[in-house]
Amino acid sequence: MSKIFVDACRGKKTPYTPVWMMRQAGRYLPEYMEVRAEAGDFLSLCKDPKKACEVSLQPVDIVGVDAAIMFSDILVVPLEMGMELKFVKGEGPVFSNPITSLEDVEKLDVQKAANELKYVYDTIKLIRGKLAADKALIGFCGAPWTLATYMIEGQGTKTYNKVKKMIYTNPNLMHALLAKVTEALKLYMENQIKSGIDVAMVFDSWAVALEQSAYFEFSWKYIKELTSFLKKNYPDTPIIVFPKGISGYLDEIDGEFDVFGVDWSTPMELAKEKLGDKYILQGNMEPTRLYDKKAIDEGVDRVIKVMKNERHIFNLGHGILPDVPVENAKYFIKTVQEKTKNL
Amino acid sequence: MSKIFVDACRGKKTPYTPVWMMRQAGRYLPEYMEVRAEAGDFLSLCKDPKKACEVSLQPVDIVGVDAAIMFSDILVVPLEMGMELKFVKGEGPVFSNPITSLEDVEKLDVQKAANELKYVYDTIKLIRGKLAADKALIGFCGAPWTLATYMIEGQGTKTYNKVKKMIYTNPNLMHALLAKVTEALKLYMENQIKSGIDVAMVFDSWAVALEQSAYFEFSWKYIKELTSFLKKNYPDTPIIVFPKGISGYLDEIDGEFDVFGVDWSTPMELAKEKLGDKYILQGNMEPTRLYDKKAIDEGVDRVIKVMKNERHIFNLGHGILPDVPVENAKYFIKTVQEKTKNL
Repeated sequence: MSKIFVDACRGKKTPYTPVWMMRQAGRYLPEYMEVRAEAGDFLSLCKDPKKACEVSLQPVDIVGVDAAIMFSDILVVPLEMGMELKFVKGEGPVFSNPITSLEDVEKLDVQKAANELKYVYDTIKLIRGKLAADKALIGFCGAPWTLATYMIEGQGTKTYNKVKKMIYTNPNLMHALLAKVTEALKLYMENQIKSGIDVAMVFDSWAVALEQSAYFEFSWKYIKELTSFLKKNYPDTPIIVFPKGISGYLDEIDGEFDVFGVDWSTPMELAKEKLGDKYILQGNMEPTRLYDKKAIDEGVDRVIKVMKNERHIFNLGHGILPDVPVENAKYFIKTVQEKTKNL
Repeated sequence: MSKIFVDACRGKKTPYTPVWMMRQAGRYLPEYMEVRAEAGDFLSLCKDPKKACEVSLQPVDIVGVDAAIMFSDILVVPLEMGMELKFVKGEGPVFSNPITSLEDVEKLDVQKAANELKYVYDTIKLIRGKLAADKALIGFCGAPWTLATYMIEGQGTKTYNKVKKMIYTNPNLMHALLAKVTEALKLYMENQIKSGIDVAMVFDSWAVALEQSAYFEFSWKYIKELTSFLKKNYPDTPIIVFPKGISGYLDEIDGEFDVFGVDWSTPMELAKEKLGDKYILQGNMEPTRLYDKKAIDEGVDRVIKVMKNERHIFNLGHGILPDVPVENAKYFIKTVQEKTKNL
């Protein structure tokens, strides 16, 4: 059965623009909060395929999105490479022993990660078994740069001073880490594809931290390596990349992938002008417009005016926030599906 | 006596590119830490003209920059408009009673702020009295949007969810606040100019939080109102604006000011292409390049290659970080002054 979301990733004309939301399986849904409370904590939920499957399906059933995204976290990869990870309430993820040396990099275990991440592959199999045949399942990973940043900083950071100190004073160590993480991600995404995902997505949330020259040297290079590997071996699986906050660098974007995710700080007109011929575009309504229905209407109209249901997947320009009313999320999805019909 | 920094702001050819650093009077300097410890806390230092003068002059004497910037904080304006402000260790600035209603906005006192900020005007007079005649003194304020964001969020925020909820659900309240803050800033900057600053700068640090349409409605409009007022009444005082992180919106930038501050995430080539004919450009070396002398050389060369000592003021693309060695800061300043000589 044809999946409108996958068709759109391949540039085929679709009856309406498919739509989903980053973080759609998340805290704004009371049903998610219930399952999460049962699981105990965030990591336990990631590691429980049955519960992870359940929350992945919720936004499809409740909100009406055109694709499910597997419930997981980008940091399970460094975790299963051997780093100790905790999610501390109010602080977010914390690695107790951040990477500071080549010895630390050498201790990371690529093959162990590929194996131990079986709970993710099991989650995928469960979701694909239950998801309607016309809905797509998105698998994902963090970009090597974004993962390496967490692994070096140890936790969220405002200044990125540890990881930036490393790239400017010890670039070789940084490259050693990035190369190893990239190898782990190749195996991880390969296993996700074999387990049944329809589309693969790479999140580079911390792209925004790097100046142009550093971005292409320390991040984009490794994203390209990963997507080239996947395209060579799994040409039928569409790939979405989402480097957040690099509107100034679009001229240099190239590589083997299908869909470019546009964040809300990059005007859709600009993304279309620079990348619309080469790639399908995904995005990019300001997520906080979900606070208000009039703001949703206006935001949806602005994006449609530029993209006109051509070579486009509708999404927010970043994740949905926990305090958004579920009713407004539903309204957003329905509005997109109706306004783009027969365009 | 001619000031190379002021000449550059006016587009005159200068013997080398003048250079300073955002946050140059700051924690990377042991001499600053000493004065701050004497003052007690951060706000007490802002309110003590003699000590604020002393730390403002330090980077001129120690690091060799071409301009002093008065030591103060953008939040003294909402503070003196009547909001209770504390600097909490590890958390940064906190307003105990954030703005939530029109009544809160009405309570803010524009005239009181203009008067109570006398300690800033006194600081300026002291600095201008002691600063060498060929060095410029920069006065500054926060942009209305950036100040309003702090006033509504109450403290630093990752998601800006309170202020964004306000702009999408209650834009009239937001405009009422922005209009009032703009009035206070007009008087404040007018008094700074009368007290002796050579150049006025407007920091819009949280420009990065807004999508394009919202940026021009809720921020840029008020910056333009402020700079037009100053240009009309004080045409001889050059104005620098620094909206951080809006590389995607440069096509829409216009207004009456002299210098556009380019942050490190906006490629200098792009800024020059879009704005270089209309405005002098300031910026934009990645501040974390200061961790390493080779990285400084490379960063300075990249900027010089684009700007070639023409219509340019050298600066970092954001503030200097506290853990940068003073020696490297000195090296940066000297490198710029030498490499741009006779270009």
